[in-house]
Amino acid sequence: MTTTVDRTMPEPAVLARPPAGHPTADLRRVGEHTLRFSNPPAILASAAVVGPKEGKGPLAADFDHVYRDPMAGQKSFEKAEREMLLNACFTALNKAGLTPQEIDVVYAGDLMNQIISSNFAARTLARPFFGIYSACATSGAGLAQAAMAIDGGFARRCLVATGSHTCAAERQYRYPTEYGFQPKPWAQYTATAAAAAVVGPGPREGLPCITHATVGVVMDGGISDPYQVGAAEAPAAVDTLRQHFADTGRGPEDYDLIVTGDLSRVGHAIAVELAALDGGWDLTGNYRDCGIMLYGDDPSVHAGASGAGCSAAVGFGHLLAEMRRGKYRRILFAATGALMSTCSYQQGESIPCVCHAVSLEMPA
Amino acid sequence: MTTTVDRTMPEPAVLARPPAGHPTADLRRVGEHTLRFSNPPAILASAAVVGPKEGKGPLAADFDHVYRDPMAGQKSFEKAEREMLLNACFTALNKAGLTPQEIDVVYAGDLMNQIISSNFAARTLARPFFGIYSACATSGAGLAQAAMAIDGGFARRCLVATGSHTCAAERQYRYPTEYGFQPKPWAQYTATAAAAAVVGPGPREGLPCITHATVGVVMDGGISDPYQVGAAEAPAAVDTLRQHFADTGRGPEDYDLIVTGDLSRVGHAIAVELAALDGGWDLTGNYRDCGIMLYGDDPSVHAGASGAGCSAAVGFGHLLAEMRRGKYRRILFAATGALMSTCSYQQGESIPCVCHAVSLEMPA
Repeated sequence: MTTTVDRTMPEPAVLARPPAGHPTADLRRVGEHTLRFSNPPAILASAAVVGPKEGKGPLAADFDHVYRDPMAGQKSFEKAEREMLLNACFTALNKAGLTPQEIDVVYAGDLMNQIISSNFAARTLARPFFGIYSACATSGAGLAQAAMAIDGGFARRCLVATGSHTCAAERQYRYPTEYGFQPKPWAQYTATAAAAAVVGPGPREGLPCITHATVGVVMDGGISDPYQVGAAEAPAAVDTLRQHFADTGRGPEDYDLIVTGDLSRVGHAIAVELAALDGGWDLTGNYRDCGIMLYGDDPSVHAGASGAGCSAAVGFGHLLAEMRRGKYRRILFAATGALMSTCSYQQGESIPCVCHAVSLEMPA
Repeated sequence: MTTTVDRTMPEPAVLARPPAGHPTADLRRVGEHTLRFSNPPAILASAAVVGPKEGKGPLAADFDHVYRDPMAGQKSFEKAEREMLLNACFTALNKAGLTPQEIDVVYAGDLMNQIISSNFAARTLARPFFGIYSACATSGAGLAQAAMAIDGGFARRCLVATGSHTCAAERQYRYPTEYGFQPKPWAQYTATAAAAAVVGPGPREGLPCITHATVGVVMDGGISDPYQVGAAEAPAAVDTLRQHFADTGRGPEDYDLIVTGDLSRVGHAIAVELAALDGGWDLTGNYRDCGIMLYGDDPSVHAGASGAGCSAAVGFGHLLAEMRRGKYRRILFAATGALMSTCSYQQGESIPCVCHAVSLEMPA
């Protein structure tokens, strides 16, 4: 065993402190994990496109396009997912009156191995591209990172996009849909949906703005059943919400709505209990979950929806529209993701999860 | 087919322009795709750990640890990759005299499906975590995003980490090593290596700083052979270098060294030719490639090295050490990545590639 340590480094202790009077240290942070944007970036436009099943749900009126064909005219599920992702991107750009050339950075990710849907969509968009991976929390991670790029002065406009396709995800993560595996009642149904948001300088009157982002820590409650995604994600969701409230001095009552990613019925109930146990803060009033909202009472989805497209379609499609319509003025959008792979759970690992929250607010 | 367009948006034309006098627009950009950091973030410390084969290469003296056992004491290749990634993270933190608690944001990614090595490493680090995916360009993407977080005032210190393991990557992307597949002469050998860098506020005397980042556009030259990674990546590398020079007004002669990610011998030769064809700029002088540097003349690696750990180990291990030793004052570090998956090439797709470049400079 050879160990060679570089000895040309300066004294370690020096490095633990930023240089005295450094202009950028601590400018845009509050508390431990929360970023506070000096000029809250505005969501200039957003779009969501969904598959036929999602188009029969209660939020259909807020989706820009409902595909009649789950294949979206493509030859494979994976290509259908990419097609939907591109449709969402171009629809959002059209609504903002922008061309791809006016986008400085694209942040996109998805559930496919090596995020191929996003990579190929980025090839078409032909703009500077950072691939991101936070599983079903990608919508929140993307908004947070785009807001950092805009508020930091690194970009004038960013495009955030993500999506999922039930048939592509199921055959990659669990069983091909055609196999007819009977899921347990706590299983969730991966959404066939894609959504995109254009983020630009703000605040701007009449547009939802991103005021804070709480970057999630990976949490693992020890659950290893890949069908128990909502239960696995609940501790991460509660941890990020708790941290957000601690950092900002806010509480659940300061939001018109708190929405988690895709905990669905099982995870939602666990999150409410964990929040109460954690310190008595109450999530029973204004707390909803995208995994419950997307399909309403449809029993065929079992505990509810999941997938990167779930929180993205509900958030970028429905919730932002509700804000523009004036129904909500302040939403804490907390996207949750299960960070496992088939390899990790086949090797006996439990499911690490993360939750990235952004505070969406209408300018006063 | 149902199409419902949200009609509550303001007039599109308004959105194409940032609000007049907006304080954050265009502050930290030059040219089309290049970020210029106001206070170039410093790389406070970096570390690289490698497998036994890499430890026999010409750069061994700059690696912090050479594993005698390619399994790193673990039960699977994937767990070995995670173990090495964590070792690199903790070694870099130790060298900086920091604990994980002093890191504000971790940026990490790898080649495993759903970047599990990074997700599980982030679970151990227990700090706010953004998963990123740029395949073998992750080292460059991570440095760029960490520099944005620091210079934008969103973080005081970031940890950037990535790695790869030859046996884990080969069995996921191509054939298990045990199968004994005979690679063609243009194939590359995935590095078993992990590296991490701690980025903090700068500039700081005696430490390499990140002055610019050129965010890559996805390029696709139409190559679909998954063994032809270097050739596939060459157009992306040349595009990002060309863009960097156009944006900054610099040329190859302004750098002591230009280093690409893992083009190896085949891709390196193509890049030199493409650069000459593109506009006559000359890459024959000070241009090297991490994929050639890692193993030197070892014929068993065919065209050279690849993998997320390749550019990371060469860059974070060797090149940064050379800068601290005073050998180089200015390096253009252009990490390249092939963004395909087994699914994409089995469905007949070509290989989209990306290159993210950062300019590493010693403060004057």
